[in-house]
This record gives sequence, structure tokens and C-alpha cells, in this order.
Amino acid sequence: MDNDVRFLRETFKLAKKGLSWTNPNPLVGAVIVKEGRIIGKGFHRKVGSVHGEIEALRNCKEDPSGATLYVNLEPCSCFGRTSPCVNTIIQSGIKKIVCSTLDPNQKVNGKGKKLLEKAGIQIVVGTLKKEARLLNEAFFTFHEKGRPFVAIKFAASLDGKMATATGDSKWITNEKARIYGRNLRANYQAILVGINTVLADNPNLGIRTKNKKDPVRIILGSKRHILKNFQVLRDQNVLIINPKNIHDLLAILREKNIISVLVEGGGETLGSFVDSKIIDKVYAFHAPLIIGGKKAITIGGDGIHIIQKALRLKNISHKKFGDNLLTIGYPLGIV
Amino acid sequence: MDNDVRFLRETFKLAKKGLSWTNPNPLVGAVIVKEGRIIGKGFHRKVGSVHGEIEALRNCKEDPSGATLYVNLEPCSCFGRTSPCVNTIIQSGIKKIVCSTLDPNQKVNGKGKKLLEKAGIQIVVGTLKKEARLLNEAFFTFHEKGRPFVAIKFAASLDGKMATATGDSKWITNEKARIYGRNLRANYQAILVGINTVLADNPNLGIRTKNKKDPVRIILGSKRHILKNFQVLRDQNVLIINPKNIHDLLAILREKNIISVLVEGGGETLGSFVDSKIIDKVYAFHAPLIIGGKKAITIGGDGIHIIQKALRLKNISHKKFGDNLLTIGYPLGIV
Repeated sequence: MDNDVRFLRETFKLAKKGLSWTNPNPLVGAVIVKEGRIIGKGFHRKVGSVHGEIEALRNCKEDPSGATLYVNLEPCSCFGRTSPCVNTIIQSGIKKIVCSTLDPNQKVNGKGKKLLEKAGIQIVVGTLKKEARLLNEAFFTFHEKGRPFVAIKFAASLDGKMATATGDSKWITNEKARIYGRNLRANYQAILVGINTVLADNPNLGIRTKNKKDPVRIILGSKRHILKNFQVLRDQNVLIINPKNIHDLLAILREKNIISVLVEGGGETLGSFVDSKIIDKVYAFHAPLIIGGKKAITIGGDGIHIIQKALRLKNISHKKFGDNLLTIGYPLGIV
Repeated sequence: MDNDVRFLRETFKLAKKGLSWTNPNPLVGAVIVKEGRIIGKGFHRKVGSVHGEIEALRNCKEDPSGATLYVNLEPCSCFGRTSPCVNTIIQSGIKKIVCSTLDPNQKVNGKGKKLLEKAGIQIVVGTLKKEARLLNEAFFTFHEKGRPFVAIKFAASLDGKMATATGDSKWITNEKARIYGRNLRANYQAILVGINTVLADNPNLGIRTKNKKDPVRIILGSKRHILKNFQVLRDQNVLIINPKNIHDLLAILREKNIISVLVEGGGETLGSFVDSKIIDKVYAFHAPLIIGGKKAITIGGDGIHIIQKALRLKNISHKKFGDNLLTIGYPLGIV
């Protein structure tokens, strides 16, 4: 395997350690290589903490001057929560930088690269670009489309029922599938459900795994008072809003710097996203059940009226959990 | 591989050549083996035609006396459309018979075996029994449960929609999946749909493949006259009935010696079968679409109210058609 590819894959691996903690920042990993040896590693641990490149420099076991820095994303050039990485990199004596993509954030987007080149550092951009974009798919969508990355998740029988006509939904999928579904939350800055789902199921909406930060819980609805004793109000990490429509909602979330949202239900809330056609990613869990029922719960809303215009998943992948199946796909194409 | 297994698998292969033609008879294939060589092969071609064992005897290139007859099902002992096979077998000089299962038909069920033994022929029953039962799953169900084998087939989006809120259903699945779905009809003696499906879609309900016999088309409903110009009435191979309920329907079909039925829609007809819980096999085709819509068509009826009591598919298998997926399973367990 090509050395650049090998070291960049190492940065991806490091970057993922920051999952759930870096939002609205991207996942960033960095390794510093001298004469073919890694002399320093780092990753962005948490929003507000030092960036991955800087941590890698600090962790160097040898003088980094003359070394190559590998990083999945273009080093930043602006003062944000920390001072610009490019300055520290220039001071370190790093000679060359290999990174997979430019930073889509307009405040950086190529400016970091220019400053580094101006300082005489060689910078190569583009290796494993697609993988690097996937690693931070929400971050890229947020900055390129100017709205949060929207994923929907649902668990259904083969006939699409998410709950029976009497509201029973415990449990359609098996435990392994449910745990996997819960862990998916770590990939999102926010989880969104309609207020009726909270009233019906009193869900926790947390990850319940050590070392992962719970996303913001967003409840669509107006009656905050009726949620008094519900689990979603267990701490301040909750947002109850009543937007006019999906576009309004996404504008509010953008304003709050929320780069990604996982919509989990119920049927009408999911349906309103389908109607808007703003869905970047779908997680569809299926158990091999037939439930039936004209009044059972499926994805609702008006629905799409013409099959040819339905949301068609691309770049599909599957995961099996015993006899349960997860289908993952991208209605709008991969980032 | 064991010789018995090898020769029995050959009988299964031969038997399948009669698919769609033998109903209400079973698929039967036979090979006659002398000193390790196959000297004759045959299968049951069509209801009313000679049975597989007899065809194999007739096709023998050498004298079958002293040979072994392999057959998937116990040779018949009764006068039906043809005279009993056992007589012809005894006269042929066959010394030994290896068959996979007894015939579940009460008119035979062990009687053939007894007559053969009485005539001094050794008969070994049971090798590849499970496979032999699967080969004739409808026939075994009909005789063991006293009702037709009921399969349902549907094509849906990931959210279970078989048609949009405005009734559009052309096409949810891709062409390969649809052709496969059409060919499945050859496995059933009858195809059943509700009259509303006929009125909405004017389906052909045929196999449209050479060398396969179209199943009986059963339409549930009372208004025969309104179907005058519809494709389902293109010939006499159609049955329009208006039973009180599923049990009534199955009694009528049993009376008519229909051993299997494939229920294809619409939502309410499929739902009434789900409600009855009399479903032996499910073919669920899924395309990677999200359609949504509270008023879109899914499997209806009352539905099952408690998840724990939903129809759970067992013995699941999958087939892929590009990005479409077929899930096959047995809610009541495999025959």
C-alpha cells in the first residue's frame, strides 16, 4: 500500500476517536512522519480542545522539523476557539503536508493551504478524498449546503409497520439491532422526535455508552409543560421547538450551529421530512415480521404521489443482526 | 456423496420439470438404477398423465428386473386418474425402492409401501425427507392440514408502501424482480387478488413464460359483470367468489381440490390473510425507496395488535435483484 494512503488511513482512525465530542467541528486526526516512522499522533478530542495537528506536534517524540504532517482535513487558518493551526505548523519546521481535502468551511477553504505554501511548506491535497468526505459527511453537508445533514432512522416490519394499530412497538427489532441503532446517535449532534413520540413512548434518546456524548434532544412541538416528568427533560441538553415547516426548522438548527440531526420518529414527523425530500441518509431496520393493519403506524405525511419521484436510496449497504437487517443509503447521493 | 442421495437428488431435478402442470398432484421424479448405472428416468408431466415411476420404467434401456427404483414420494396404491403404480412396479421385477417420504394423501400414506413389501420388494423411506417435503410443500400442507397452502407476495418500499396515496404502483420493484415474481406463480395452483386490485390495475395474473401453465385466477368479490373487459376474464381459467371469511374461502378451495394459492393483493386482501394468521409462506420484495404517506397503501386489515403475536418469518432466505431484495420465509415454520 502507498505510504500516503497508509498514513492517511491512520489519521482517519485517530479522527474517529473524537466521535460525538467534536461537533460542530469536524473529526480530525493527524500523524507526523519522519524518515518513514510515525513520530507523533493526535486527534481533535472535543470542541474547544486543541486541534488534531497541534496534538500530534505536541506528542512528537522527536524534533518534527523536516517531517511530513498527514491530516484528513486542511489545517485551519482562522482564530476560532483555538488559534490558527497553520501558525503552529509553520513554527514547528514541518516541511510537507499531505491532506485529503480542503476544509469546506468558508472561513478556511483553501486559505490554510495558501498560508502554508507561502511559508514554503509543500502541501498535497486529494488523496482518499472520498473517504475523508464520508468521515465528516455531516460537516461537509453543513458547510456546502448551508443546512444540517439530515438522517432518518426507523425500525419496521417487512410491511413497514413501526407500531401496531394499538401503538405497540416494543420490540420490533432484536436487541443487537436496537443497541446498534442507539450507538448510531453518536454520529449526530442532535436527535429529533415529534412530541407525540415522547408522550407515547417516553424515550430516553441517549446513547447510554461510556465515552460518548449524548446528542442534543430536539422535540418538535409546543407544549413544553406536559413533558415535565419525561426522560427527555432529564437535563438541559434539550431543545423544544415548533417550527413552521422543515425549512424553518433547518434554518433554526443552522443558526444554532447544529451540523447534523438524526430524525427517529414518529410516523408523521418522519413523513414531513420525506415530504420535504431533504433527507441525506436513511437507516432502515427491518425485522422479519408481518404486522398488517390499516391503522398501524408507518411513515406518514402526505407521502410522495408518484413512484418515479420517491426517495431512492443510493450507495446502499446492509448490516445483519441475526434475522434483522439494516439498510443504509443516501437518497441525495453520497457527499 | 452417498449414492442414494445422488440418485434422489436426480429425482428431485426430474420432478421439477412438471412444475405448474401436475396440480393437484405432487411433483414426482424417478430413476431406475442397475449396477450403479441409471437405466431409466421419468417424471410426472401433467395431471392425468402417467406417474413418474411408470414413465421411468417405460423409458428403461435395459430390463429393470433386479434394479432399484429411486423416487421422491411413495408410489401410489390407489386407482385415481391412472391405475396404481405399485402393480406396475411389482410386475416390472424391481427389487428395491428408495424413496424420501411416504405420500401424505390418506388414500396412499403407507399403503403403497405395505403392498410393495408384501410383494417382496425392499423399500427404504426417509433419505432427504426434508428436501422432498419442501419440493412438494403445498401438497404436504394440503393433505396434512386439510387446506390449501397459502403464500402471500407483495412488493413494497422500505417503508412498506405497495402503492402511493394516489394509487401509483408502477413500478416499485425493478424488472428482474418483477419477472421473478411472475415466475413464482408457476409454483401455485391458484393466484388470488381482491376485486379492487383488478379494477385498479387490470392485471394479467399470468406467468407469460412458455412451457408453464397459468394458475387459476381467483378474484374475491361479488360483481362479476363489472369485470367484463378486464384481462383476468380472458379465458375460463378464473373463479370469482365472495366467501364470508378466510376459513370459508379455504374450505371452498379445498372442495375444489386447489392445493395452493398465492395471494398477491391488494392491501386489504393481504390484510385479511394476516388477520387470519393462515399464511404458510411470504415473498416480500423490497426496493430501496421511501414513499411515505398516511394514506399510501400497505398491508391493511385490522392488523395484529401485539408485536409479540405478529407473524414472524422462519427459515428465511434472501435473493438480490440489483438493489432490490426478496425475503422469503415461513410464518408457521417449514413444512
